[in-house]
Amino acid sequence: MARVVVDVMLKPEILDPQGRAVMGAFTRLGVTGVSDIRQGKRFEITFDGDVSEAQLTDLHRMAEELLSNPVIETYTLRVEP
Amino acid sequence: MARVVVDVMLKPEILDPQGRAVMGAFTRLGVTGVSDIRQGKRFEITFDGDVSEAQLTDLHRMAEELLSNPVIETYTLRVEP
Repeated sequence: MARVVVDVMLKPEILDPQGRAVMGAFTRLGVTGVSDIRQGKRFEITFDGDVSEAQLTDLHRMAEELLSNPVIETYTLRVEP
Repeated sequence: MARVVVDVMLKPEILDPQGRAVMGAFTRLGVTGVSDIRQGKRFEITFDGDVSEAQLTDLHRMAEELLSNPVIETYTLRVEP
């Protein structure tokens, strides 16, 4: 059984209103020293067995076409041990 | 400059309609071997300097009270190198 994690975040140059809202709440609640907060999505994809090279290629295609919007987001994909 | 990542996922026993929808799309698009997909949230919190013990304690409080709903979600928090 293998698990692949895909993290999708807004590109740094794209304004992140959700992250801004969380940052505002941190400040109001007295958390100091924070310079930035960004909010994104995390997908945990569990496979029955090991992940083949072909499946990894499929996953990269899905991450780019389905899980993220390449115009405004970037993704990272990793197989977890 | 330090970065703390907080991942928030639904508890395993809670139904995840977003993950289910993604899984349905994977199946329709011909990705095989996937047994489960869960979707959650990822927060990237950047600090001006290093993160102190007091700030970490604050962050755990925020992760539990603000970033997640402990009734249905769990969080993991880690300081990235």
